[in-house]
Amino acid sequence: MSAPSSDRPGREQFAFAYSLRVRWSEVDPQGIVFNPNYFVYFDVAVTEYWRALGFPYPDGFTALGVDTFARAIEAEYLGSARFDDVIDVAIRTRRIGRSSLACAFAILRGDEILTRGEMVYVVADAATRRPVSVPEPLRAAILALERVAPETA
Amino acid sequence: MSAPSSDRPGREQFAFAYSLRVRWSEVDPQGIVFNPNYFVYFDVAVTEYWRALGFPYPDGFTALGVDTFARAIEAEYLGSARFDDVIDVAIRTRRIGRSSLACAFAILRGDEILTRGEMVYVVADAATRRPVSVPEPLRAAILALERVAPETA
Amino acid sequence: MSAPSSDRPGREQFAFAYSLRVRWSEVDPQGIVFNPNYFVYFDVAVTEYWRALGFPYPDGFTALGVDTFARAIEAEYLGSARFDDVIDVAIRTRRIGRSSLACAFAILRGDEILTRGEMVYVVADAATRRPVSVPEPLRAAILALERVAPETA
Amino acid sequence: MSAPSSDRPGREQFAFAYSLRVRWSEVDPQGIVFNPNYFVYFDVAVTEYWRALGFPYPDGFTALGVDTFARAIEAEYLGSARFDDVIDVAIRTRRIGRSSLACAFAILRGDEILTRGEMVYVVADAATRRPVSVPEPLRAAILALERVAPETA
Repeated sequence: MSAPSSDRPGREQFAFAYSLRVRWSEVDPQGIVFNPNYFVYFDVAVTEYWRALGFPYPDGFTALGVDTFARAIEAEYLGSARFDDVIDVAIRTRRIGRSSLACAFAILRGDEILTRGEMVYVVADAATRRPVSVPEPLRAAILALERVAPETA
Repeated sequence: MSAPSSDRPGREQFAFAYSLRVRWSEVDPQGIVFNPNYFVYFDVAVTEYWRALGFPYPDGFTALGVDTFARAIEAEYLGSARFDDVIDVAIRTRRIGRSSLACAFAILRGDEILTRGEMVYVVADAATRRPVSVPEPLRAAILALERVAPETA
Repeated sequence: MSAPSSDRPGREQFAFAYSLRVRWSEVDPQGIVFNPNYFVYFDVAVTEYWRALGFPYPDGFTALGVDTFARAIEAEYLGSARFDDVIDVAIRTRRIGRSSLACAFAILRGDEILTRGEMVYVVADAATRRPVSVPEPLRAAILALERVAPETA
Repeated sequence: MSAPSSDRPGREQFAFAYSLRVRWSEVDPQGIVFNPNYFVYFDVAVTEYWRALGFPYPDGFTALGVDTFARAIEAEYLGSARFDDVIDVAIRTRRIGRSSLACAFAILRGDEILTRGEMVYVVADAATRRPVSVPEPLRAAILALERVAPETA
């Protein structure tokens, strides 16, 4: 993880969070959430983030002529969620690129950060799957929602 | 389970079986495979069963103008698979209906039957998703492969 | 499925239901929920059912000295859930056996039944995993909750 | 991803690779593998990597008194795997730290790199889950297997 410590996500940086409860199917024989499932949690929460922005996936994106594809992901595991834990998945757009969105996230149990990371999406033409500019209405909705202004290209 | 005991699957009834190894992600905090994952194993194995029949899914079915949809499933859990176990998923078509296929399966670890059950598929028009007759080439391939003759409608 | 039509689950038979939203990870290339995931939904909902009974899993069971293991499962697929659908998973104990519980379930989208089925659990000693009698406090809690009286052994 | 381009994984850097076939359950409505599943593939392959090293997980680690826990993960998505694709998951230990192992991986379809990334594990005491030194027999086995010498602490 390359983020300097001064840029590490604290809960107050996030305008958006979504709560969910850890399922039995997501926990492994060590008694902790199997690590790829934290990215499933991110995906569940980002679905709600798009909805909160007014662009429910996929229809809100299709209406803009675009789709999103995962381009890069990274996470640090600082703690472990366990069965039946209620956790919060906090998401914010950290950077709006020319044809990409970098979404920082933190997964918390109460005040404890269990996982923090970042997902980078490419915004692509819905038909050709080629990168296109981030649609202006989406950019505007993100800027309106976020507490910490995203970097922009 | 409605199958009479005389009809219970023994390994010798199955002309087809596929081996796989239990993944860490499939095992729960009890240390045993989380029960819905046995149906994932069935799905992995039935994909190979279709391939063995000469109709790899989905292209082999699309070429016949059809697709399959799960209609009913049942299973008995007689034992538990554990992490890293190598198990065999044995499949046979027990019945060829007018527009359905009933596939019996048994999941074994060596000679021990861990799970046995049956999946019923509807054969449907690929476009409308409405039930259609089981295509003759598929029926013929099943009859040619199976050791125990399937019931037919 | 052997249930006579007069015994088919209607929503009014269920005192308990739990709502959830279909995740992207649960939907397959056909655009519908991959069939084993309906059993994951059942598992998520039965966790809430145990909680509603006053015996949150696993601690509420461990306190009684028991654990539960899947013994048999069956389901009929009558319709398909799609991404982002909000669905209800209704559960009721249909039968309290000597050392087993048969839980009927229905998965609905509004008034439409998508899946109905039944899971049979063995109640086992937490340490030896051998079948034991259904603990009296659990039996009493089930009888108090259910709208339709369960069959009893 | 912080790796300089001269250090980017090419297949020849990897002494170890494991092949698997993409399952229906792993593919999403876009027709491509849902991104967290690439980490499941990594996990399946690293299990085989430990086995190839002579330390099958978990028993080979338990015998050394240690266990491993995910500490950080990152990946770039360069292409998409599709249903029924046969893919290779190549793994190498890039760095042996004092109490950590950094495993670089690449997921390929033929010569095409679909995903590349790195998983960092903490090596911990099996009982206390506190970081401990990488056991000497494990270190020696890694050094004997790898084609490109890992960095060492």
